[in-house]
Amino acid sequence: MTLNKTHDPARRSWVESANAAGCAFPIQNLPWGVFSQGGGAARVGVAIGEMILDVSALEEGGLVVPAPGRCVFGAGVLNPFMALGPAAWSKVRGALVGLLDAEGGRRDLPLVAQADVVMHLPIFVRSYTDFYASREHATNVGTMFRGPENALPPNWLHMPIGYNGRASTVVVSGTPVRRPLGQLKGAGEVLPRLGASERLDFELELGAVIGTGSGMGQPVTTAEAWEMIFGFVLLNDWSARDVQVWEYQPLGPFQSKAFATSISPWVVTREALEPFRVAPPAREVDLLPYLAEGEDRNLDLHLEVALAPEGQAARTIVRTNARHLYYSAAQQVAHHAISGCAMEVGDLIGSGTISGPIPESCGSLLELTENGKRGDFLQDGDGVVFRGWCEGGYSLGFGTCEGVILPAPVAP
Amino acid sequence: MTLNKTHDPARRSWVESANAAGCAFPIQNLPWGVFSQGGGAARVGVAIGEMILDVSALEEGGLVVPAPGRCVFGAGVLNPFMALGPAAWSKVRGALVGLLDAEGGRRDLPLVAQADVVMHLPIFVRSYTDFYASREHATNVGTMFRGPENALPPNWLHMPIGYNGRASTVVVSGTPVRRPLGQLKGAGEVLPRLGASERLDFELELGAVIGTGSGMGQPVTTAEAWEMIFGFVLLNDWSARDVQVWEYQPLGPFQSKAFATSISPWVVTREALEPFRVAPPAREVDLLPYLAEGEDRNLDLHLEVALAPEGQAARTIVRTNARHLYYSAAQQVAHHAISGCAMEVGDLIGSGTISGPIPESCGSLLELTENGKRGDFLQDGDGVVFRGWCEGGYSLGFGTCEGVILPAPVAP
Repeated sequence: MTLNKTHDPARRSWVESANAAGCAFPIQNLPWGVFSQGGGAARVGVAIGEMILDVSALEEGGLVVPAPGRCVFGAGVLNPFMALGPAAWSKVRGALVGLLDAEGGRRDLPLVAQADVVMHLPIFVRSYTDFYASREHATNVGTMFRGPENALPPNWLHMPIGYNGRASTVVVSGTPVRRPLGQLKGAGEVLPRLGASERLDFELELGAVIGTGSGMGQPVTTAEAWEMIFGFVLLNDWSARDVQVWEYQPLGPFQSKAFATSISPWVVTREALEPFRVAPPAREVDLLPYLAEGEDRNLDLHLEVALAPEGQAARTIVRTNARHLYYSAAQQVAHHAISGCAMEVGDLIGSGTISGPIPESCGSLLELTENGKRGDFLQDGDGVVFRGWCEGGYSLGFGTCEGVILPAPVAP
Repeated sequence: MTLNKTHDPARRSWVESANAAGCAFPIQNLPWGVFSQGGGAARVGVAIGEMILDVSALEEGGLVVPAPGRCVFGAGVLNPFMALGPAAWSKVRGALVGLLDAEGGRRDLPLVAQADVVMHLPIFVRSYTDFYASREHATNVGTMFRGPENALPPNWLHMPIGYNGRASTVVVSGTPVRRPLGQLKGAGEVLPRLGASERLDFELELGAVIGTGSGMGQPVTTAEAWEMIFGFVLLNDWSARDVQVWEYQPLGPFQSKAFATSISPWVVTREALEPFRVAPPAREVDLLPYLAEGEDRNLDLHLEVALAPEGQAARTIVRTNARHLYYSAAQQVAHHAISGCAMEVGDLIGSGTISGPIPESCGSLLELTENGKRGDFLQDGDGVVFRGWCEGGYSLGFGTCEGVILPAPVAP
């Protein structure tokens, strides 16, 4: 894909709030979400300025017709629309830009204020996979647990390492997160005990949303993988570090990650992100051909994490950028499918914690506190807020991905 | 649950083939499956002798009404029926036994021959999780890779170790399995290469099917976990050992398992298995209270694996029993939910490879061949057939779980 008229930085919308300097949702963005009002049915829309354009209503009224004779925006999730594929995504985006344009748009469209709605999980998450694609994060964590000489596992520079996560607990931003129970065993303890995690952490990630699938037994190229991606969300892969360290050998993280994963409510499309593609970091060893990329697919996406202890103002504790990722989302998906693993509409692909080269650019408390030596893990009542945006002739924002920690439940 | 009239070994069906000695599907079984005939729609039924009772037709005709005013057998998967919960499952089972009984049954029921239908995946697999619950298997594998003194990981006797698998490639018995591509790196090789797996294996497992879910943030007891289980299937967790050994550190198995998982087409209900519950193996260390069981939930289930190289007769190479599992399915599910991980209708829970105390009772070629030293891994064209059955006053069979190996695809 190349840049097209929907990326024109000079374009403005008749929705005035979309034209404000620094607005996350200018006409060049149009991220997709699912909302409801006053307890009504969930509807599909795109964010524009401080408003939402109700695309379900546009389809009902015949102003947008992605699939003639069929309703794709009536299900309260994006999956039926995503399944139509990249040509349809692009066509609808072009139509919406036309309707919202300050010149030649229509001003009688169904808009609702973002302040008046409840946002829902925008996709039915078919499966959730989490990668480990930041070299800085893998090095930091590896150094803590295996020493600096064994920091990166031997396979790390050759493939995007990943594991299957748990789809049932992916929740939309704003959903409170209950501190998990789990088996804990301190370094000085002989036997494990059941308790509330004492090392609860966030992980700052980017999530890729798979819009079209691949067949079982049919690997895909990185170029095909890129075309399968509908868009991206901010993703918080909440982690219980004490549960993780006791459980993860030999089969990987399980209950330490399974209790909750939060995503931002707006899916920023791959097409909207097109102007912000940048080169990946330098390769230390050549990648195998199935992971090679003929074009740049990293994203120049600024990321921040703010921490708000209960009753206190939020304080920004992380500033980093998704461009640091060693493997692009396309490389992650191509590796995921190389075995013949079928990818499906609605699959969510986490990048793994995004860390950069300096301490403040680390995307987890595990790294920021050096495993609790220089600060605390999350306390009950703490709020965690992720922000993400690209900067060109305009800001292209992801909005926020937020969650507040609730106390652990009573043991069963 | 205690034994009831549906377990009476003296009961016989008017479907004569169900009364034959050794028949897998006597009236005491009635496992659930999904079938179609002549390209028609998928329908829900129970196996009885050599026939299938079309339960979708019974519901259409009003002879079985699990949810008044609502159709639960019209979706071509068991999920809507399972979601009704244990009381409904038991009520429908009682009604079907009554209809099929040699004394007092109705002989005008919609029966189709198993030989005339195509079987489909019986459930929509919401998520697939695989445990590692056989002490003998974990010990055998651990000895091979870490030596006899470190065979069992330190956590193993304290919790059922598990990992999230891939739901998108769970297929019904009979579906061919394409040999996966993956990164391979032999002990003597400096760099990995992309190639077709040379160490393709089966894993003999039992799969538990979750019929009713649990809430996010709400752990469950083992007794509640047991009630959530609708039934069991035979499960083949196909594995590429060479891919696995290179990829699995530090986040566990991923593409080495993601290419295919086969399950038997018939879901044998937990209620039908009630007479075959037996005590678990002796505990070496006390389990934490959340894993304690007030009653026996292991199953006395005979298991066999036969291998049929292309053009040759099948030869039985494994004879074992699910009673050897150290952790029951209820313990696996209770551990799965302890973090607050939500369980959902249609979740599939693999037991992990089931191995017993003698060489012939090992449920994988990795163990049977001592990692290829005493025999081959799977060749293209090989057929693998699992069988399972319980023995009381009757045989209660699972049927078979089968798959044939196809050559690897061309690299992308």
